[in-house]
Amino acid sequence: MERIEIPADVPAEAESLYRENFEKSTGGSGRLMLFAGDQKVEHLNNDFYGEGIPPEDNDPEHLFRIASRARIGVFATQFGLISRYARDYDKVPYLVKLNSKTNLVPYTDKDPYSQQWLEVADIVRFRETSGLDIRGVGYTVYIGGEHEHSMLREAARIVHEAHIHGMLAVIWLYPKGPYIKDEHDPHLIAGAAGVAACLGADFVKLKVPYEQGRFKPELLREATQAAGRTGVLCEGGSKVDERVFLEELHAQIHIGGSRGNGTGRNIHQRPLDEAVRMANAIYAVTCEDASVEDAIDILKG
Amino acid sequence: MERIEIPADVPAEAESLYRENFEKSTGGSGRLMLFAGDQKVEHLNNDFYGEGIPPEDNDPEHLFRIASRARIGVFATQFGLISRYARDYDKVPYLVKLNSKTNLVPYTDKDPYSQQWLEVADIVRFRETSGLDIRGVGYTVYIGGEHEHSMLREAARIVHEAHIHGMLAVIWLYPKGPYIKDEHDPHLIAGAAGVAACLGADFVKLKVPYEQGRFKPELLREATQAAGRTGVLCEGGSKVDERVFLEELHAQIHIGGSRGNGTGRNIHQRPLDEAVRMANAIYAVTCEDASVEDAIDILKG
Amino acid sequence: MERIEIPADVPAEAESLYRENFEKSTGGSGRLMLFAGDQKVEHLNNDFYGEGIPPEDNDPEHLFRIASRARIGVFATQFGLISRYARDYDKVPYLVKLNSKTNLVPYTDKDPYSQQWLEVADIVRFRETSGLDIRGVGYTVYIGGEHEHSMLREAARIVHEAHIHGMLAVIWLYPKGPYIKDEHDPHLIAGAAGVAACLGADFVKLKVPYEQGRFKPELLREATQAAGRTGVLCEGGSKVDERVFLEELHAQIHIGGSRGNGTGRNIHQRPLDEAVRMANAIYAVTCEDASVEDAIDILKG
Amino acid sequence: MERIEIPADVPAEAESLYRENFEKSTGGSGRLMLFAGDQKVEHLNNDFYGEGIPPEDNDPEHLFRIASRARIGVFATQFGLISRYARDYDKVPYLVKLNSKTNLVPYTDKDPYSQQWLEVADIVRFRETSGLDIRGVGYTVYIGGEHEHSMLREAARIVHEAHIHGMLAVIWLYPKGPYIKDEHDPHLIAGAAGVAACLGADFVKLKVPYEQGRFKPELLREATQAAGRTGVLCEGGSKVDERVFLEELHAQIHIGGSRGNGTGRNIHQRPLDEAVRMANAIYAVTCEDASVEDAIDILKG
Amino acid sequence: MERIEIPADVPAEAESLYRENFEKSTGGSGRLMLFAGDQKVEHLNNDFYGEGIPPEDNDPEHLFRIASRARIGVFATQFGLISRYARDYDKVPYLVKLNSKTNLVPYTDKDPYSQQWLEVADIVRFRETSGLDIRGVGYTVYIGGEHEHSMLREAARIVHEAHIHGMLAVIWLYPKGPYIKDEHDPHLIAGAAGVAACLGADFVKLKVPYEQGRFKPELLREATQAAGRTGVLCEGGSKVDERVFLEELHAQIHIGGSRGNGTGRNIHQRPLDEAVRMANAIYAVTCEDASVEDAIDILKG
Repeated sequence: MERIEIPADVPAEAESLYRENFEKSTGGSGRLMLFAGDQKVEHLNNDFYGEGIPPEDNDPEHLFRIASRARIGVFATQFGLISRYARDYDKVPYLVKLNSKTNLVPYTDKDPYSQQWLEVADIVRFRETSGLDIRGVGYTVYIGGEHEHSMLREAARIVHEAHIHGMLAVIWLYPKGPYIKDEHDPHLIAGAAGVAACLGADFVKLKVPYEQGRFKPELLREATQAAGRTGVLCEGGSKVDERVFLEELHAQIHIGGSRGNGTGRNIHQRPLDEAVRMANAIYAVTCEDASVEDAIDILKG
Repeated sequence: MERIEIPADVPAEAESLYRENFEKSTGGSGRLMLFAGDQKVEHLNNDFYGEGIPPEDNDPEHLFRIASRARIGVFATQFGLISRYARDYDKVPYLVKLNSKTNLVPYTDKDPYSQQWLEVADIVRFRETSGLDIRGVGYTVYIGGEHEHSMLREAARIVHEAHIHGMLAVIWLYPKGPYIKDEHDPHLIAGAAGVAACLGADFVKLKVPYEQGRFKPELLREATQAAGRTGVLCEGGSKVDERVFLEELHAQIHIGGSRGNGTGRNIHQRPLDEAVRMANAIYAVTCEDASVEDAIDILKG
Repeated sequence: MERIEIPADVPAEAESLYRENFEKSTGGSGRLMLFAGDQKVEHLNNDFYGEGIPPEDNDPEHLFRIASRARIGVFATQFGLISRYARDYDKVPYLVKLNSKTNLVPYTDKDPYSQQWLEVADIVRFRETSGLDIRGVGYTVYIGGEHEHSMLREAARIVHEAHIHGMLAVIWLYPKGPYIKDEHDPHLIAGAAGVAACLGADFVKLKVPYEQGRFKPELLREATQAAGRTGVLCEGGSKVDERVFLEELHAQIHIGGSRGNGTGRNIHQRPLDEAVRMANAIYAVTCEDASVEDAIDILKG
Repeated sequence: MERIEIPADVPAEAESLYRENFEKSTGGSGRLMLFAGDQKVEHLNNDFYGEGIPPEDNDPEHLFRIASRARIGVFATQFGLISRYARDYDKVPYLVKLNSKTNLVPYTDKDPYSQQWLEVADIVRFRETSGLDIRGVGYTVYIGGEHEHSMLREAARIVHEAHIHGMLAVIWLYPKGPYIKDEHDPHLIAGAAGVAACLGADFVKLKVPYEQGRFKPELLREATQAAGRTGVLCEGGSKVDERVFLEELHAQIHIGGSRGNGTGRNIHQRPLDEAVRMANAIYAVTCEDASVEDAIDILKG
Repeated sequence: MERIEIPADVPAEAESLYRENFEKSTGGSGRLMLFAGDQKVEHLNNDFYGEGIPPEDNDPEHLFRIASRARIGVFATQFGLISRYARDYDKVPYLVKLNSKTNLVPYTDKDPYSQQWLEVADIVRFRETSGLDIRGVGYTVYIGGEHEHSMLREAARIVHEAHIHGMLAVIWLYPKGPYIKDEHDPHLIAGAAGVAACLGADFVKLKVPYEQGRFKPELLREATQAAGRTGVLCEGGSKVDERVFLEELHAQIHIGGSRGNGTGRNIHQRPLDEAVRMANAIYAVTCEDASVEDAIDILKG
């Protein structure tokens, strides 16, 4: 089991809780399988209804059914959705995504600002009054636009406050706006990783680096090294072929040095049983050093 | 009687109050008949004075007279109006609409921002000092513009704070601004429904979906499913023929899966007795499974 | 004497103070003669110095001399001016105008924002430490521009906080900016009246409605009815012939249904004795059902 | 000795301190000689280094040496500068200038906003922990631009909070921006004076009025009268001939009705001894009814 | 040993801590060698990965390895990075850089705003709960743009709050934006120095002044004198020849009057041992009056 590097801003009284949140969420591997379920705001209903998407995915409860039956590190979604379902899904390990914005205004037209909805103190109190297994908080930072400063400040505060209360902090860090020529530029992604490290994040979710439009796992190394002790999670992105997905995931970890993934559509855009098996396959690769073939077996049931 | 799904952020000490507010407001049906009376800011005096509107509608007390004599779920209006009349109408079930804006600046010219006027804590204290039957709070979110982030934050906080104090939270959720091509697009409305679910709202008031400019109840299903445990209220809109209104309402519920309506002009733009009967007819369809013919009978007295 | 409709947000412990402030300020008539003295910011020195203005009007103390000798409901001016003179004029009934802006930037160029200067809590503490007769607070809202939301929020809070502390709240409500075609449109003014009612104001100061550029008292009725229990005060405006002024005032009340006036220049742009008699004439019409001839007699001394 | 008009917002427990601060700062004359030393931000290093400026003026300690040796009412400068030197200059009467901006962006290009740096509460605590003789606070308001509302609010709060703690409040009040045709227009300056009176300032620093580009003391009368009980301080401006300076100062007071001056460059742009004598000359005219010839004698030592 | 001028806003109970922080950080010399490690946000990954940069510099731990083995005054970096490494590097003297922005948006396109991430109170509590040797805080102010006022306010508060808690405050002060013709203009840099003095900073990091594109140490004198008791630190800038660097450093101090330097790339863009020796060489020149030849010897080991 990997040594847990407890951040220095976790006070003594919160150390055991932080350690427990970290160990349980990473299965002792130091790597995080984050089941991402925040797209109902980020992409409105595009990811949940339409061609190639099973009808049951349109019901938000589908996400909770998966999260409660699959092996996952944490289920990341908005507070409101948790509040409406968690009494019936009270064993799920939750990570509260603290900000979200819609995709109605293009990034090229207006610099994005995704503001914090609730305070970490609200989440801490909620954890106490509800007794739910809330392991951490998440927040998206868009760098490169006129609201960068607001999001950097909110992110820095969220990470610190989460640590004070023994919770994990995951930062989504995306360069956006008219000044960004290529969101998949490995050097730019490494820069984003470094920003997350300076924010003190436990994990940072990043875009996947491309060379001439294609992912190569070696390209990740600049970012995973620049991130230092902040673990890099690769974005799952839109739904692709399962084997391709699992191979890339395996290579991201074992070649690129990533420490997990944030996957949504590749899991929930499936009927329940298949979604659960896909999540389990991802978990096995991420946290249990499973090979791609092992994972394919899990996926096939 | 439908099972009440109490949100997880309602703490133990507020559960019985939340349950009571929910049951009384929905008549045990899980559906809400919301009498909307916030148009004096939203539309200035257009809805209350002019051709085809009875003179008595120009007096704000008309709304209170209706609310006190009709069967309604809640009467939604601004705090200030409640403060001026509620001592004389102290049996009305109130829902305080916490934000409002005028219609003087077109949405196409400037992105709308309807800011929160009072804090939920103000409403809670008012409920206590006045002894009034304040069941919940309401708030409008416009997505798609530069102030989206401010309204999402205010809405998320309002819903959570309402729940902490055992109150219902109703969100009006409207895509607006130059990026919105069709406010009646079913897929867009389903997206808005999902946003409300992520905010944790108990009910969300939405535009009615159209296909080629016409309402069809089947179009609602994407939204009512995407809303999950958040009940969809269909907007009443401008005054139309009574039978058409009641038929659409019935179809919205029984075909489209909506869980109520927010109706203003179709009620208050009538003389008092007729307005009361219209409200009663709407209530019967919404909360008592009345047929359209039953409702027409009620309307006719 | 008219029944006093105490707003529901006046708590039990503040009821007698609210009632006293209301009764004393309206002389038991339910109507308010507001002596407006906030123009030193709103119009800079234009109203106080120049052709046709007596030299003594340039000294701010002129306002206090009038307020202390005339019969008035309240004297409305900025906090700072009160703080500098009130020790010598400690019997004057004050209403603290909480916001003000200059007229240097035209409304057509930039949307106006007149921000709140002090909190109601500051005024309450000042009332207590100074022992002055502070009856209420005032605030101007400009609707129709990009800062509308800020002013609506500040106004709603001010009205509520004033009521909590037993004070009157007067709102100046003016549509302004490039979207306003005619500030004297009766229907628009009625809309403004309704907004003030939704804010819970005790009184609202409005522009006077015109038809083809001329005031007719009947035009006020839409607004005074739409205002409900919020009393409409007509703006005094620039200085006009005394008889015309008093006749219009009488008609505003007895035909238009207004419940008072806010008059500044028509009072203070006169030598002290004449100003006092003019204020007394206005008071008699407003609060004592005096006829225009009675008022002219008072004016003549 | 002039009667001290203690503002009504000075509470009983702070009255003797306010009276002492006022009397000591005005030498019992009711007039204030304010030694202005805030230009290191306002004008960067332009006023302290260059042709015609003695080299010692480039060291900020020059200001403190003058302030500690000369007769002055108060020495106005930023908090940070006070914090670095005041342990060695602990007899100086200080007035903390609470805001400042640089001159890098022209007023004609962007409307100025000079934001408050520290709270009055910070200054009060500093006064207590340091034991320094802090007599008051200062703040600049620019009217006529899009940030006017922010500065009016900050100014109103600062004046009131200073009074609550027995301190003097001096407001610099300057119309600025593209809508200001002539900063030296006597009527505009009188308007600025009235704004300061409405803010409750003890003293207001104003531009000097011109007629056809030249100062005439009679032009000040509109402003000094409009300021009421707020004392008008004339701006010292850039360095001019000593006799001219002292003659204008004398005329401002005895003809124009000003109650002091705010002088910086005309004092500190001199070698120490000469600077001290110039300050003493100004003090004598301002607070001791000295004639111009008396003052010239003081200047000559 | 130089006299320590303790700022007047350091209260009695924090004096010994301030003195200790100052003496230890300057080695009793009054001069500060600041090891700057905040570029992972300011320049993204440009300074840490690429041609001419040793691979180990891409790992943020490289900075901590240097800081823990070299002789330095303080190591300045973001809170988050400290939180992730400081348990393993707990003897390092830290200075928390409280704001940072990326370089994605050019200064010429949008005025920069680098907002404060955490409060000084957060740092004080962190110092107490972690037991780390946190000596001070840092903050960058950009003057000359539309956000100048926000940064001046934040800076003023940070300096004052740091002093209250016995910590050093270092301000990075850079004129930026379209109005700045020449960032290396000696007179402009002196202006920036004066602003920092008015903010009360202990040290100010400035650009190096040029004449016709070249540094000359005499050019610094205007700034170091204008800074008064605020010590001027010269920016290290991009990596240059070692001898040139050390000669300029020596001349900055002994001819230009600077009181230290802030050096990042010239240290960390080297393999660990060499980086440590370079830091030691800089320290010797800065704090121990070493000659350039002495320093070269240290660098050569």
